[in-house]
Amino acid sequence: MKISKAVITAAGRQQRTLPLQLLIDRDGVERSVLQILIHEVVQAGIEEIAVVVRPGDEIAYAEVAGDHAGRLHFVPQAESLGYGHAIYCAASFTQGDPFLHLVGDHLYVQRDAPSCAQRLVELAQAEACTVSAVQPTRESLLPYFGAIGGRPVSGRADLYRVDTVIEKPTPTEAEQRLIVPGLRAGHYLCFFGMHVLTPTVMELLARQLAAAKGDSRRVTLSSALAELAPREQYLALEQQDSRYDLGVKYGLLSAQLALALHGRDRDEVLTRLLELMAQRDLAAAGR
Amino acid sequence: MKISKAVITAAGRQQRTLPLQLLIDRDGVERSVLQILIHEVVQAGIEEIAVVVRPGDEIAYAEVAGDHAGRLHFVPQAESLGYGHAIYCAASFTQGDPFLHLVGDHLYVQRDAPSCAQRLVELAQAEACTVSAVQPTRESLLPYFGAIGGRPVSGRADLYRVDTVIEKPTPTEAEQRLIVPGLRAGHYLCFFGMHVLTPTVMELLARQLAAAKGDSRRVTLSSALAELAPREQYLALEQQDSRYDLGVKYGLLSAQLALALHGRDRDEVLTRLLELMAQRDLAAAGR
Repeated sequence: MKISKAVITAAGRQQRTLPLQLLIDRDGVERSVLQILIHEVVQAGIEEIAVVVRPGDEIAYAEVAGDHAGRLHFVPQAESLGYGHAIYCAASFTQGDPFLHLVGDHLYVQRDAPSCAQRLVELAQAEACTVSAVQPTRESLLPYFGAIGGRPVSGRADLYRVDTVIEKPTPTEAEQRLIVPGLRAGHYLCFFGMHVLTPTVMELLARQLAAAKGDSRRVTLSSALAELAPREQYLALEQQDSRYDLGVKYGLLSAQLALALHGRDRDEVLTRLLELMAQRDLAAAGR
Repeated sequence: MKISKAVITAAGRQQRTLPLQLLIDRDGVERSVLQILIHEVVQAGIEEIAVVVRPGDEIAYAEVAGDHAGRLHFVPQAESLGYGHAIYCAASFTQGDPFLHLVGDHLYVQRDAPSCAQRLVELAQAEACTVSAVQPTRESLLPYFGAIGGRPVSGRADLYRVDTVIEKPTPTEAEQRLIVPGLRAGHYLCFFGMHVLTPTVMELLARQLAAAKGDSRRVTLSSALAELAPREQYLALEQQDSRYDLGVKYGLLSAQLALALHGRDRDEVLTRLLELMAQRDLAAAGR
């Protein structure tokens, strides 16, 4: 199985302006969030990228896409019909091929090469199956994520066979159905918005959307993956990289600081931080 | 003299995306840079605001303008003909009235009320003249700013009568023409992008632009103010507030940190900074 396509979703009401935000990346270069995401995708060997956008946002996105703008295909999501529908909008682009999927409002700050996207793509190509990136996540954060249950793959500390998927589980549901052997108590494996999806996932989304007509918001990627798990091999790869939800308060600031502190401008940024704090303290002292 | 209009310039090639950037303000609320600027302007008693934009940017700006979007008038600058021309594009909006002017790529983080805009407007209304906000600036930074020469107004530590204006002076020019009594050695009073301008300034811009045809980039706000200084009373008000040039590397990060460290989320942001640094150090230690 060869993965040469990617789908980035960015049409959500709260997400739309995030790909336009400017950050300085680890190399000390100013790039838009969209450009940083595209860079990660291209590094993983992807050739063509669909970006699912709200109609009208195409021009603004194209302007901040950088070097790889030529690889982009904009797919309008005309109505706000939810996350599952947003991914399905790209079906005419994926055309029965497997694809890497990223959400446009998260950023992945890797500590070491290879990147999260690259590891996912390599594993999915080798195993010819759907693979989701997951991170051990505290129970208190379950209301924000999809979560999986499954068994560790023997001989691999970071790989799981998924048998259950629940979107935003309650603590009781999680305790009953999503306990994963070997994980710290009170922690569950949650999605953080990066997957390789097989064509079956698109078929399941299509069927669920058709069945849910009138209420397509119920159709999430998790609902399709829940149906996939008992049918096809489905793996989850645990990531050590940090991911930053740009949509939460101070999400952009945290992502920028993480990029800077892991990058070549570390000393410059630390110096600036100290200067800003000193200014504040002088001001507080009445100077 | 009553000031009820403001002109924000945002059509510069490097400036255009900056007003769209999202920051958390001192009150802990996520706002676009444009919204923060508008908020400062409205707090100063301004009723109508012209934003000079590159044609096509109107929709994106209107979407991030927030509560006061109804006060905005978009003025397209069809060609990139420089800063003086950008301000002059708003002449049909100002229509012979004095106005507050801000550049769209700087942010003003005030320590105490009243704000920089409010102090400028109050002084200009009381003195019925042009007033520029200035800050003592190290000689090494002269290549980035317009600078003034003048005399302190007696009895006021923060107010100057301007007699000379030079855009981006050389150190020699500055030493010969811009020494201001009472300032620290090696420091000059530089603009940082906020002024109240009388109708005479628009007239001078019009005349200079007509005379410079073919090379309108030479016409800057400084060139008009240099002509104004010997003709009308023209004051400069020294500001203690910090201003952040969002267009420089890490400018957005610095502005965000300054807002956070001077605002209600100070403790939360300091905690997050420490967490991020600890993560980085654990990673560096090979964990």
